[in-house]
Amino acid sequence: MTSPLTELQALDDAALEARLAALLDRVQPRADAALAQRLQQRLDRLTKPTGALGRLEALALQIGVLQGRTHPRIEDPQLMVFAADHGLARQGVSAYPQEVTWQMVANMLGGGAAVNVLARQHALALTLVDAGVAHDVAALPGAAVQGAPRGAGLPDGVVDAKLGAGTQDASAQAAMTLRQARLGLLTGAALLQARPGQALVLGEMGIGNTASAALLLHRLAGVPLETATGRGTGLDDAGLAHKRAVLQRCADRAPDAQDPLTVLAEFGGFEIAMMAGAALQAAAERRVLLVDGFIVSAAVLLAWRLAPAVREACVFAHLGAEQGHAALLQVLGAQPLLQGLGLRLGEGSGAALAWPLLESSLRLLDQMASFESAQVSDRA
Amino acid sequence: MTSPLTELQALDDAALEARLAALLDRVQPRADAALAQRLQQRLDRLTKPTGALGRLEALALQIGVLQGRTHPRIEDPQLMVFAADHGLARQGVSAYPQEVTWQMVANMLGGGAAVNVLARQHALALTLVDAGVAHDVAALPGAAVQGAPRGAGLPDGVVDAKLGAGTQDASAQAAMTLRQARLGLLTGAALLQARPGQALVLGEMGIGNTASAALLLHRLAGVPLETATGRGTGLDDAGLAHKRAVLQRCADRAPDAQDPLTVLAEFGGFEIAMMAGAALQAAAERRVLLVDGFIVSAAVLLAWRLAPAVREACVFAHLGAEQGHAALLQVLGAQPLLQGLGLRLGEGSGAALAWPLLESSLRLLDQMASFESAQVSDRA
Repeated sequence: MTSPLTELQALDDAALEARLAALLDRVQPRADAALAQRLQQRLDRLTKPTGALGRLEALALQIGVLQGRTHPRIEDPQLMVFAADHGLARQGVSAYPQEVTWQMVANMLGGGAAVNVLARQHALALTLVDAGVAHDVAALPGAAVQGAPRGAGLPDGVVDAKLGAGTQDASAQAAMTLRQARLGLLTGAALLQARPGQALVLGEMGIGNTASAALLLHRLAGVPLETATGRGTGLDDAGLAHKRAVLQRCADRAPDAQDPLTVLAEFGGFEIAMMAGAALQAAAERRVLLVDGFIVSAAVLLAWRLAPAVREACVFAHLGAEQGHAALLQVLGAQPLLQGLGLRLGEGSGAALAWPLLESSLRLLDQMASFESAQVSDRA
Repeated sequence: MTSPLTELQALDDAALEARLAALLDRVQPRADAALAQRLQQRLDRLTKPTGALGRLEALALQIGVLQGRTHPRIEDPQLMVFAADHGLARQGVSAYPQEVTWQMVANMLGGGAAVNVLARQHALALTLVDAGVAHDVAALPGAAVQGAPRGAGLPDGVVDAKLGAGTQDASAQAAMTLRQARLGLLTGAALLQARPGQALVLGEMGIGNTASAALLLHRLAGVPLETATGRGTGLDDAGLAHKRAVLQRCADRAPDAQDPLTVLAEFGGFEIAMMAGAALQAAAERRVLLVDGFIVSAAVLLAWRLAPAVREACVFAHLGAEQGHAALLQVLGAQPLLQGLGLRLGEGSGAALAWPLLESSLRLLDQMASFESAQVSDRA
């Protein structure tokens, strides 16, 4: 598809600011105590001991309230993977070289990444977005292929929404301009808006992006860098110490960055900007947002600071192995569906793994018999 | 289908003993260090940071070793639900009346139980077995219906393998005879043997069966009754205290019961006997056994005490909310796939919810590209 970035780039800064304000304004609280009560009553009449489906009952209720109906449904779930590079990678904050970003984009185009396998398993429509990879992604085999059959686990090529050839090195200067930050948010929102369905599953690819996520967690939520910084794709102890030192330099370089947009601009990245924008759009449209691991959670933190009601659309897929993830989930008051699996892959893989649980919660609410309809005796 | 129980009942005790010994003898260790290493090498070449798929990698490796091949596959997974009543229910150990057992069997025949919904979602073949329900289950609507389409989440009627109209009241006498215990184990094994596929998902239905499971955990693993006894379907504090007192009477009545078969006979139940038998058969045939909650785990504990190598076939689906489940999983050295969901429904519902994770582990191993095939740079 044509990237909405082209149209957005034609707008001046004031117009972008107005568009962003309008987006944030559309993210409104959906709380509805009466509806929540009706949903709870429905759940309590299903043929099971009261509350026996645990978290799945709370999940069905949350989605019902979000959608504003007692019979919530989800069709055509969208898995969107945003890929971008980070100038900070040049400071050696990752165990893998930066070129792995575009190589994994190529792998996703070929159907060989974990996210392809899982999208195929669960028939999730897959969209792959170049948010700013430092490579000519459009020239990769399959980059322009259209018409992947639904359920094949293949993207329709790559959406070209390149905000730049990777961000700037955040240890030396701002990762991006405020204009790029706004463009990223609005592009992510527009990309989702152009897609169907009632659910968004977010994923990312970007060597170095746990560094940006850690900086966002540190600055937006006051979590110490020591806690926020982890091994990413697999740094050893020395690598981790080095990464912490680099991130401290980044934080020290921009001590005054406090508001969400500035923090995003200072520390990156492009894919985080677009995911935050897509998250805001999802909440504005009352779509369920299934949140993957540490980096997607950081994008949600950013979106939450911009518009707190985004939180109501969020379902947190898993507690990953990346060091800062537990603290980040705690900040967001999140209780993830999957725990103890030790996932740390990204790409949306943890969210895709949790997807069938979300689907189960709605199917159980929709398809189970009630005590009355099945003539089962209730407790005394 | 015809129940194997009829044929088994024609055998004398010596013949049953010989059959059981032969079954236990077929449960052999499958450890193969060289194969495990080849599987680990395959996993480490997939396009992801080393170990980034966490528990799913260990799971794929376990299944590969169990199946004795580097490319493990599972087709035609079988979900078998065993239903039976417990004489102990007359002592008021459950929040629900005993008739709920047969009513839920009727509900499962009609497709309205949670397990139907989940079997449908994941295309699990569903078998419903009357292991000893205190009701004329064969007369229920749908009990004799055959030919449910695969994926419909409906059983092919009910398999009549009734060992009795519920067990005896274990607070007053042995729940069943040693002959019934052997018949139960062998019937469960034969029922699985007659079914295709490489995986067994176990579930159960039986008002009062957390009581039997708690007694098994207490006696077979030395876990205090205080720890082993929980609220089941939802007892309040007074109900829980009463249940503990009843179970203490049961335990005191049979202080010498120590060997697994005697413990089963003393404390029940019929469905636990058949599930343990099916578990042994699964391990003997190198099928993966996906273990549901507290009661199925107790059946696995029993099977493990009869033939320790059964453990190698087990994948533990979830840590449920029932009080004794954590201790039971600890005894078995089990690390469940799902945690923190607070499930306590039984029926195999927790196992069915975890099923797609098991499937994912094999799909990822099978379908992901390698660093070489995708030309992705490995870490330095």
